[in-house]
Amino acid sequence: MNDVISLLMKHRSIRRFTDQPVTEQQLNLIVASAQMASTSSNVQAYSVIAVTEPELKKELASLSGNQAYIEQCPVFLVWCADLYRLQQVTAPHLGEQLSYEDSTENFIVATIDVALAAQNAVVAAESLGLGIVYIGGVRNQVAELSELLGLPELVYPVFGMCVGYPDQETDLRPRLPVDAVLHRNRYSKDRIIEPVNDYDETTKRYMLKRTDGKSDTSWSQVMATRLAQPNRLHMKQFLDSKGFMKQ
Amino acid sequence: MNDVISLLMKHRSIRRFTDQPVTEQQLNLIVASAQMASTSSNVQAYSVIAVTEPELKKELASLSGNQAYIEQCPVFLVWCADLYRLQQVTAPHLGEQLSYEDSTENFIVATIDVALAAQNAVVAAESLGLGIVYIGGVRNQVAELSELLGLPELVYPVFGMCVGYPDQETDLRPRLPVDAVLHRNRYSKDRIIEPVNDYDETTKRYMLKRTDGKSDTSWSQVMATRLAQPNRLHMKQFLDSKGFMKQ
Repeated sequence: MNDVISLLMKHRSIRRFTDQPVTEQQLNLIVASAQMASTSSNVQAYSVIAVTEPELKKELASLSGNQAYIEQCPVFLVWCADLYRLQQVTAPHLGEQLSYEDSTENFIVATIDVALAAQNAVVAAESLGLGIVYIGGVRNQVAELSELLGLPELVYPVFGMCVGYPDQETDLRPRLPVDAVLHRNRYSKDRIIEPVNDYDETTKRYMLKRTDGKSDTSWSQVMATRLAQPNRLHMKQFLDSKGFMKQ
Repeated sequence: MNDVISLLMKHRSIRRFTDQPVTEQQLNLIVASAQMASTSSNVQAYSVIAVTEPELKKELASLSGNQAYIEQCPVFLVWCADLYRLQQVTAPHLGEQLSYEDSTENFIVATIDVALAAQNAVVAAESLGLGIVYIGGVRNQVAELSELLGLPELVYPVFGMCVGYPDQETDLRPRLPVDAVLHRNRYSKDRIIEPVNDYDETTKRYMLKRTDGKSDTSWSQVMATRLAQPNRLHMKQFLDSKGFMKQ
């Protein structure tokens, strides 16, 4: 254990922020840290939009499932997979030559790139005493949100991120036992059920505490409810309309 | 700036490792740190396979573009998007009910989840004095590699990661100017070319230095060559065969 690992182990999502602003210098440090994350063959296939205009944050909150903290946080970052920049800057070199920015492989590359960068941003932000929460809700009404932010073809909002000074204390959320996610040399299909059963007991206790005894739903039950929801089924058609994964 | 941000800013890929092993305790700290990264609605849709068997590492190196450091590093981590575990543990709760693990949305969720976790692992590893390199090459012969590791349906290897003690000094690779990736309130299409032109000059100087004056290829040129390659066009069909993105 060391200070860096202690910081990582203390992560929890923050959904209430003080009025204290995030400074321009902090934002630049956070984005510069993000940029130092690995990127596939240095493609750097992402962009981040820092939203600070109050009206725009309000509209984004409304398009992302009415999550009030999007409006309340001082800076809302929208992290986008971005193959448009690559397409634009390589076009003069390629002329009439075929190019493959529309492949499934490049969609995956861009999605990984933005996630690695964003996670570095989180570590940097938390090291500065800031708190964050990722917002998958930017994919709720993804076409409308993309239009509002002026996202061109080959760009999609992967997730949002509220950033600001925490105005709440929240518990750490217990994770699956290490054994459930860490396999040795080969994938162990026969080792799934037992650690998840243990975790279901842990999450029941956590839920009982968190809800003052009102709920003892296990992780497996929560996940079953979630998987049974036809969630954001528009993504396939939307990504197609933006020029992604044509092959 | 602080110690954590300094660590992030010093990141560079390591491709040569000493013989010193990565201990079991280090591996556990690294994976536990990974697990504390945010995960969409706590789905934790990833697995990581720690490969230490020499023969297996050799085969993986051969399947991933003959990158010798995969064989040479003490631990090779294969980070997988994993919706199989969720499917298995929720099935008893769902019975005959429809579920949507095969949606494009859930493919995106799993791919983000594994990337956030992996980047936390990188920060933890580097804080312990270890070095890493991400290996996209696990997607080169993705079907063969998946079979070798026994990956079931709804699991795919997103990237590999060599971990070990660095046995080389490498330069920091310059990144795009912050202005090229950071937009304000809305996406600025008209602000792409200028910062990239600046960066092209930076990368030319960097290449000249790195190749002892033999090459001065700019970033845009390298990217053009890369985009013109029909790279891993098997991914779409492979993901389909594994049950991903059916809708």
